[in-house]
Amino acid sequence: MLRTNTCGELTIKNVGQIVSLCGWLARARDFGGMTFIDLRDRYGITQLVFNSETNKELYEQAKKLGREFVIRATGDVCERSNKNLKIPSGEIEIIVNKLEILNESKTPPFTIEDESDGGDELRMKYRYLDLRRTSVKNNLLQRHKVGQAVREYFDANGFADIETPFLIKSTPEGARDFVVPSRMSQGEFYALPQSPQTFKQLLMVSGFDRYYQIVRCFRDEDLRADRQPEFTQIDCEMSFVEQEDVLQMFEGMVKHIFKKVRNLDLPKFPRMTYANAMKYYGVDKPDTRFEMKISELNDVVKGKNFKVYDDAELIGGICAKGCAEYTRKQLDKLTEWVKRPQIGAGGLGYIKYNSDGTLKSSFDKFFDEPSLKKIAEKFSAKQGDLILILAGAETKTRKALGELRLEMGNKLGLRDKSRFECLWVVDFPLLEWNEEEQRWFAMHHPFTSPKKEDIDWMYNGYTEKNSSHAPKANAYDVVINGVEVGGGSIRIHNKELQQQMFKVLGLTKEETEQKFGFILNAFEFGAPPHGGIAFGFDRLCSMVISNEDYIRDYIAFPKNNSGRDVMLDSPSPIDEKQKKELGLK
Amino acid sequence: MLRTNTCGELTIKNVGQIVSLCGWLARARDFGGMTFIDLRDRYGITQLVFNSETNKELYEQAKKLGREFVIRATGDVCERSNKNLKIPSGEIEIIVNKLEILNESKTPPFTIEDESDGGDELRMKYRYLDLRRTSVKNNLLQRHKVGQAVREYFDANGFADIETPFLIKSTPEGARDFVVPSRMSQGEFYALPQSPQTFKQLLMVSGFDRYYQIVRCFRDEDLRADRQPEFTQIDCEMSFVEQEDVLQMFEGMVKHIFKKVRNLDLPKFPRMTYANAMKYYGVDKPDTRFEMKISELNDVVKGKNFKVYDDAELIGGICAKGCAEYTRKQLDKLTEWVKRPQIGAGGLGYIKYNSDGTLKSSFDKFFDEPSLKKIAEKFSAKQGDLILILAGAETKTRKALGELRLEMGNKLGLRDKSRFECLWVVDFPLLEWNEEEQRWFAMHHPFTSPKKEDIDWMYNGYTEKNSSHAPKANAYDVVINGVEVGGGSIRIHNKELQQQMFKVLGLTKEETEQKFGFILNAFEFGAPPHGGIAFGFDRLCSMVISNEDYIRDYIAFPKNNSGRDVMLDSPSPIDEKQKKELGLK
Repeated sequence: MLRTNTCGELTIKNVGQIVSLCGWLARARDFGGMTFIDLRDRYGITQLVFNSETNKELYEQAKKLGREFVIRATGDVCERSNKNLKIPSGEIEIIVNKLEILNESKTPPFTIEDESDGGDELRMKYRYLDLRRTSVKNNLLQRHKVGQAVREYFDANGFADIETPFLIKSTPEGARDFVVPSRMSQGEFYALPQSPQTFKQLLMVSGFDRYYQIVRCFRDEDLRADRQPEFTQIDCEMSFVEQEDVLQMFEGMVKHIFKKVRNLDLPKFPRMTYANAMKYYGVDKPDTRFEMKISELNDVVKGKNFKVYDDAELIGGICAKGCAEYTRKQLDKLTEWVKRPQIGAGGLGYIKYNSDGTLKSSFDKFFDEPSLKKIAEKFSAKQGDLILILAGAETKTRKALGELRLEMGNKLGLRDKSRFECLWVVDFPLLEWNEEEQRWFAMHHPFTSPKKEDIDWMYNGYTEKNSSHAPKANAYDVVINGVEVGGGSIRIHNKELQQQMFKVLGLTKEETEQKFGFILNAFEFGAPPHGGIAFGFDRLCSMVISNEDYIRDYIAFPKNNSGRDVMLDSPSPIDEKQKKELGLK
Repeated sequence: MLRTNTCGELTIKNVGQIVSLCGWLARARDFGGMTFIDLRDRYGITQLVFNSETNKELYEQAKKLGREFVIRATGDVCERSNKNLKIPSGEIEIIVNKLEILNESKTPPFTIEDESDGGDELRMKYRYLDLRRTSVKNNLLQRHKVGQAVREYFDANGFADIETPFLIKSTPEGARDFVVPSRMSQGEFYALPQSPQTFKQLLMVSGFDRYYQIVRCFRDEDLRADRQPEFTQIDCEMSFVEQEDVLQMFEGMVKHIFKKVRNLDLPKFPRMTYANAMKYYGVDKPDTRFEMKISELNDVVKGKNFKVYDDAELIGGICAKGCAEYTRKQLDKLTEWVKRPQIGAGGLGYIKYNSDGTLKSSFDKFFDEPSLKKIAEKFSAKQGDLILILAGAETKTRKALGELRLEMGNKLGLRDKSRFECLWVVDFPLLEWNEEEQRWFAMHHPFTSPKKEDIDWMYNGYTEKNSSHAPKANAYDVVINGVEVGGGSIRIHNKELQQQMFKVLGLTKEETEQKFGFILNAFEFGAPPHGGIAFGFDRLCSMVISNEDYIRDYIAFPKNNSGRDVMLDSPSPIDEKQKKELGLK
């Protein structure tokens, strides 16, 4: 070892020892005759001292060191006169008597400090330097801890970590597959897994009854702000279980992570149906750190000759506590905000419940005070509150109300970064009707089982397009502070029902056989009842570590929004020889 | 939970309890009026009893169950009269009073027993059934344990598990890359990693000083008997270390695995230079469970007018203890064996040291008894021993002698399955001269550092083709019983030397920049001295679990020798639509 200690571990107890440290020069300060260097490694920072009076040659040498030089310094641990009590090693310094430059460094393109002066693109290009910054470095070290906690929990609960293949078969149903041309079978392709879904089900057929894996998955999607073409999943499956068993087990996992990584004891996770999530929060992943539930107002606003509301499929609102004092300007800004294409509302209605007890609305022309009061009662609004109202087509309006609710939550500081509210959303629909393609799509994936009472519909009801009796699924999501971190279901384990599911999804017998024959075959040889869940590991880390939903900072070498690795400059052209071998062109 | 217990945990202590078990019907036996069923799950087998006298209906139901049916049985734990003491649950049985068929099963295409009647291809196609067999199942569960031991060791030693990307850049140097066409940048490709080599080095540049990952890697090679296009690696790297530190750390890891998984305490691993491994064992991964070292015989066999030896570059042999009684037929068979193209020897010479003290050789015409004795002395041969001799070009002959040594080790039962001999092979050559391409190739990979004393050669010696002064590397392999399970090196951390390395390997400045620019850039910003190792996880598991070198049995869903997944039927054609989107054709 080139070092005896790290830069994070020496304290006042080590005074008098002779040590060797290795690390990067984070900062150097010269006070005529004395040079102080902050030496940085993974574990912390230790101050090195060079004194021209005691060792002129070494002092001169030290003065020539530049930022980010890699050095090895040997010397005595001494007590500092000027202590820095913010860091554990701040009470000591090393009086250096031997110095070795292990490697020089050019001046980095941005400062390697907690707050960097480098832009996003630049820091992505020099990701290996960005990773030296304490904040980014700690994200990855904490991610490692989350992984440890996950494995610890699964080990304690008898789950086996079993690796599944990456070069699999393309079965597009949902997102696009990345494919890998085969050299040995020209014209044929492997696909990279979007998830190990079918493999974990096969492992259940094999009898491995408790499986998990922390595994890379791939989706060739048009990337949105915070998606990555490759991402990591905690993938889990259990046999001989019912939905309740799965919820208990994985609620336990999330609690274990929070306990281990943040020393937090989370209470039991509440349950909410998908229907209620949509009704009260306008979204299937509600942020339950704050109330401000959506109320439907159709019964109290229709028939007042206000055409906008009379024509609307849904009129709904939220009540922002204590916002009655909002100015015209503030309300205009909010109106602009809801009219943005991302939200897409036609306009914003409001009722101010003034502190003097009067009510003032944006539609006073059509509503008298008792009518406004009636609306206010829907929200149990009090003096000083502001009611915000949107109207329009049902689905769109619900979504917009959900967004408005979050926006007001932000404005009012209700989305508290120090709080974690976890919940289960349950009873998802099994299918979604796609108008464009005029067919049913699986809401989760085609292996999700319908609720028992809806199985008949799968055989006899599905030809009724967009049926309001469409079945519910044994499916569930874990939501933390409005972010979906995991989701799963009890699977179909019966071959006939699985075949029928593919039929409902519009696959022909041939397509079903060609794409999913192997799993249907497997179901003929004694498939046990089983179910499971998958967590987005990147997102879970982001939430647990920083209570934020931004995965890129928790991935060592992420890709940008175009799916490009700007550090490697990839994707990139390949040799003609390679292409020829693969039979491409 | 559909069960209260597993099929592996009930013992005499549980007698009197009412339990529910779930599992697969492994075997049913009917003794007129009594049916006994062996119910199997991941944890073991428990006997179920159905008695027509006490419950006729249930008995009739049980009689109709077929092999591999999935059932749920509830009943009383009772002491067996006819105990099976080979299994923990063999002292009890369940008198069933409730039975539920969870799923039926067709008759499996092969028997699901320790010794199956299914051929290789059939078992691969129905891998999910093969995985039900205790032996295959246990391999995977043991593999899980090996992984746990690895992580436990790294956790204790401060290594951080950091995930590196799978969609990277094609930089073929060595094996062929699998590539992934980019849809968003048509005509461009990602590559799948052959190893995370450059990423782990970048992590060292970032300051993560102890990194590990259990990670999938990909090589598009023409598959040999026991290679897989995707395989798993334990990938590790450390900063501020010298070779000795790396050897100590990872010897510790291997020892920890053997302790945890097999409860074996391995002694300190011996070290052997590459030169000595080649000289005495004819191979760079010697099986040191037995001696039978190769001796060079040039000085004692040349100049006897035996043209074969006089013309040969190398004459060498081994001494097989106690084999002097080999018959003509046995020797002929051995001669045939060495003449096979895989070995490629021209013939086999021998000297029998008979029990009466006489010596008899295959070349008596040219050698008198004192000359034969002189050869025998080289091996310290004793009465009863058989000396086997090969001659020819040096490299080929060494290799053939190494193979012959192993073959004789097999014949003599010296490759004891209960023993583990681990060793480090060190001081590998840095480069190999390729006659065909008339250039140097990296023996390990181009990031391996030369020994200090050989750095001068890198600048001034390399133009001398096939120089006998070619440099040695700070590279090392871990070998267990003749199987290379891991290898690594101290890396180059200096930009100039790394550039020179690419120059020696015949890359132009442009190629170097295009393929490896990112890592050369990184080296300009303070790269620390670093080194590491990678273990073939599949192979390590195979060795630790069964002391055999056959990885396919330790992978859940392996591919066959043509790189094909016969269960999935992959690779396979993809939709024209997919191809078009990717700009292929």
